[in-house]
Amino acid sequence: MHQLDYLNTCPRDAFVSALGDIFEHASWVAEAAFPFRPFSGVAALHDAMTEAVRKAPHNWQLELVRGHPELGGKVGRAVGLTDASRTEQGGLGLDRLSDEELARFTRLNAAYRERFGLHFIICVRRHTRDSILRNFERRTATDPEMEFQTALDEIGLITRLRLVAAVDGPGKPRTDGRLSTHVLDTMDGKPAAGVRLELYEIGASARGLIAQATTNADGRTDQPLLSGAPLRIGTYELLFFIGPHFARLAMADPPYLDVVPVRFSIAEPEGHYHVPLLVTPWSYSTYRGS
Amino acid sequence: MHQLDYLNTCPRDAFVSALGDIFEHASWVAEAAFPFRPFSGVAALHDAMTEAVRKAPHNWQLELVRGHPELGGKVGRAVGLTDASRTEQGGLGLDRLSDEELARFTRLNAAYRERFGLHFIICVRRHTRDSILRNFERRTATDPEMEFQTALDEIGLITRLRLVAAVDGPGKPRTDGRLSTHVLDTMDGKPAAGVRLELYEIGASARGLIAQATTNADGRTDQPLLSGAPLRIGTYELLFFIGPHFARLAMADPPYLDVVPVRFSIAEPEGHYHVPLLVTPWSYSTYRGS
Amino acid sequence: MHQLDYLNTCPRDAFVSALGDIFEHASWVAEAAFPFRPFSGVAALHDAMTEAVRKAPHNWQLELVRGHPELGGKVGRAVGLTDASRTEQGGLGLDRLSDEELARFTRLNAAYRERFGLHFIICVRRHTRDSILRNFERRTATDPEMEFQTALDEIGLITRLRLVAAVDGPGKPRTDGRLSTHVLDTMDGKPAAGVRLELYEIGASARGLIAQATTNADGRTDQPLLSGAPLRIGTYELLFFIGPHFARLAMADPPYLDVVPVRFSIAEPEGHYHVPLLVTPWSYSTYRGS
Amino acid sequence: MHQLDYLNTCPRDAFVSALGDIFEHASWVAEAAFPFRPFSGVAALHDAMTEAVRKAPHNWQLELVRGHPELGGKVGRAVGLTDASRTEQGGLGLDRLSDEELARFTRLNAAYRERFGLHFIICVRRHTRDSILRNFERRTATDPEMEFQTALDEIGLITRLRLVAAVDGPGKPRTDGRLSTHVLDTMDGKPAAGVRLELYEIGASARGLIAQATTNADGRTDQPLLSGAPLRIGTYELLFFIGPHFARLAMADPPYLDVVPVRFSIAEPEGHYHVPLLVTPWSYSTYRGS
Repeated sequence: MHQLDYLNTCPRDAFVSALGDIFEHASWVAEAAFPFRPFSGVAALHDAMTEAVRKAPHNWQLELVRGHPELGGKVGRAVGLTDASRTEQGGLGLDRLSDEELARFTRLNAAYRERFGLHFIICVRRHTRDSILRNFERRTATDPEMEFQTALDEIGLITRLRLVAAVDGPGKPRTDGRLSTHVLDTMDGKPAAGVRLELYEIGASARGLIAQATTNADGRTDQPLLSGAPLRIGTYELLFFIGPHFARLAMADPPYLDVVPVRFSIAEPEGHYHVPLLVTPWSYSTYRGS
Repeated sequence: MHQLDYLNTCPRDAFVSALGDIFEHASWVAEAAFPFRPFSGVAALHDAMTEAVRKAPHNWQLELVRGHPELGGKVGRAVGLTDASRTEQGGLGLDRLSDEELARFTRLNAAYRERFGLHFIICVRRHTRDSILRNFERRTATDPEMEFQTALDEIGLITRLRLVAAVDGPGKPRTDGRLSTHVLDTMDGKPAAGVRLELYEIGASARGLIAQATTNADGRTDQPLLSGAPLRIGTYELLFFIGPHFARLAMADPPYLDVVPVRFSIAEPEGHYHVPLLVTPWSYSTYRGS
Repeated sequence: MHQLDYLNTCPRDAFVSALGDIFEHASWVAEAAFPFRPFSGVAALHDAMTEAVRKAPHNWQLELVRGHPELGGKVGRAVGLTDASRTEQGGLGLDRLSDEELARFTRLNAAYRERFGLHFIICVRRHTRDSILRNFERRTATDPEMEFQTALDEIGLITRLRLVAAVDGPGKPRTDGRLSTHVLDTMDGKPAAGVRLELYEIGASARGLIAQATTNADGRTDQPLLSGAPLRIGTYELLFFIGPHFARLAMADPPYLDVVPVRFSIAEPEGHYHVPLLVTPWSYSTYRGS
Repeated sequence: MHQLDYLNTCPRDAFVSALGDIFEHASWVAEAAFPFRPFSGVAALHDAMTEAVRKAPHNWQLELVRGHPELGGKVGRAVGLTDASRTEQGGLGLDRLSDEELARFTRLNAAYRERFGLHFIICVRRHTRDSILRNFERRTATDPEMEFQTALDEIGLITRLRLVAAVDGPGKPRTDGRLSTHVLDTMDGKPAAGVRLELYEIGASARGLIAQATTNADGRTDQPLLSGAPLRIGTYELLFFIGPHFARLAMADPPYLDVVPVRFSIAEPEGHYHVPLLVTPWSYSTYRGS
């Protein structure tokens, strides 16, 4: 971890050495940003680097795009992944695809490469597998110029995450999202404590259970259900095991409500999603709160 | 189908012949009810028959209980099912059990028989398979006297359904339940028309999709989702495909809400369950309504 | 009350005599509609009459507008009101204005007359006093041609109500609105019976309490709170006296909720407003339902 | 303001001098607490003082009760109010009663004095005038022994507030309540900013508008609506001026919802009342939140 202060004052070689890997195989981006020192914050440093990419000759941009590994494909798993890329893709399990998923990725990689002559680039850490596949198919159908810009934008998102991990200092761009919840017993006008929660990623290629918690005395969880990273674009189901909370009452048998599923999608990886439940034995409400 | 008027005035032989099969292999029940004619309604006729059972000697009651077929077991499938019993059990697919389910039923049948010396009797048409299994296990643990009364009560429920199917006339007991819904777009203050709905029975032994419909201009379905029979005690999930309804708006991608699942249990087979959805693109409420 | 069948077949003189007063002091409207007999329904008859007005020479239209009495003003109270006009205005209490209200109406009448050379015409039965004053001020500021059309439209609304009251037959236009409610105890999953309701018209010139009722076993009122007439455009407050319903519980003292006011406005006199309350001791929801 | 540390170590005279006025005209209470030094916190100090009262001879207790001024009555206004009492009662306007209210207080004071031979004592700062009158009437009907204990309890509440104001240190008892709100636009899934709020105390003797605010970007108010003091037991109406928030939409005219009143009662002066509004143009929910 480098300090922004240090990067603002160190020699050119040290600067390029520190930031040369942020843009994969393209230390010229760090070099192009160097003259704009000092940077008021980490976000300003990243802006300078992406601005350098935007102003670079097309063939440099092309090389940058080509320097990124193929997503989840055989090539990607066999060769050429930098450590950073390997870690980023591993978090989503792209290195543990089923045969069928691997076949689908391979087919999409081939179609994309044939159409654009490029690898498909996406900021994996902002997506679920479902969302990657959906974007993969959608982007394979767009026109080459627009798609090239989209690829550069995704490199911007990838490098922003890398920069935030590599450089400490003021003015960090917001890269983390947050998913929280709150259970209110509106029959008693009190938080519902001790309610078990399970969060599932759902969809064809979903990872299943990704978080669980129990509500505390304030009806909240001690930690957000998800935080400290971008939220992955995709569809989720949050299960509230509300049955035991009302078991003290003489309820219907079986009780009308037991496990309450709330199914929702996340579209903003850097957003705050608050998904509360207001519940009685016979009714509930939920909404995107704040 | 017999008319109650006819049964109130016909000769004894015709009366017993008409009603002798209502209580399985026990035409003496019809004979015992005969002297209490005329009956003001179908429910009164049924009451007279169950009263006759309650006042009968214990060994007659015992024979009545023993006359009922074994539930879903090998014996039940091979021998002794009256047509009525076969149809009633068939509706739930008890004659198409998986090997595992068959093994479980067989095991429970054996345990129950060993404990009580009887077949397990339950009014199948008021239950899902899950509910039958849950009751089977619970009742196997009760004491013999209480369980014998429960078996007679279940015979009362079974014969009530048979009587309602066999006799036409005033004063029918309520044996049908109803499940209905209503979708309101509370962003526009209007019913949500054209919303697809799917109703699933869920649980370990559930039958899957059991009803589907699309809301009409009033946000309701032209027919109740379930009606014309007892509701089966069990757990259900009603899916509201609300995504397309809000697709005219510039929504998040993917939209926050797309398929809204409402999971609930039915405990009263003869009840009315109204399960509405009040929905905006970012929130919803549901409750047991009326 | 005339039958449409009769009006479709009677002699011209009888037709004009029956309908000559529908448009105030303008029997020529009935005469102009006569040749279009037979009318398939009451709405079709009214359409023919308003069409005749629209096609009439401007000075005939002008005379029609001038034939209407001044609203609530001294002149209106002293002279020239037909019985129909007197009754329509009386329902709202325009003949019992306070001195201040009378002064306001008189001032608005004068301003309107000076600007347009006409009396202000509005279908009083579709409005509260507040709404009339709001429209009066707004319309006094529009341009004369648009306002003349608005006056003719209002005459269309006035005469539609008169026609519906005067002619019986099929195809009646919808002129009645309806206000209904429903109280659901979502703590118990049941209708809340025995809840007292009071409906107030509110606003500077409001009439106060205009309806009251108590919910029945289904949580509804035996009759709609308002029906059988157009709803008056205006603002209302519906009070739900929910305190006693939850008094069986050990509640906070004083209870968190006692009288729940729901304040809403009606904008469609012929609409159906369903204003339900879903309530627990600590929460409630309301919405425009259907 | 004294420091608890100082009181834990200062000479006896200084201790009694500092705390002698907490219990009105009864410095013996401070003297009786002195031997129990040191106190771990302010609450512990107060507990020691109230314990001293509870263990004191009845005639000392009686003198303590008699030392409190008459509430809002002529005597109270003319003589004997300590500065503390005057300020406490002034906050509620008990020194600015209307003639009618003064008459009612005078009558209740007389009835109470006749029945119990005492002044009515209540911790004014935890009540609205309505609540005081309600308690006055209720307590006048209880039996003398219970009422004497209630009077001592109220002195405990009064002195707890005085002690918290007079002594700084750790372990302060909770004496403040809080009323907060939150407005969520569930049509847009976002906080509703810029919504004007008005809080009224309502009831026969209510003080009217007591707070106003406008929601910030998070749909909350920068400061709680009420805080920094006990909440006064009583009934309130919180008005949400939601009309302008939805005015960008093509709404009904007048809009279905404009000012949304939420009427609720506070029963716990030291509690946190969170009263949110989830609102669309056609619906809203509110609940006691946390």
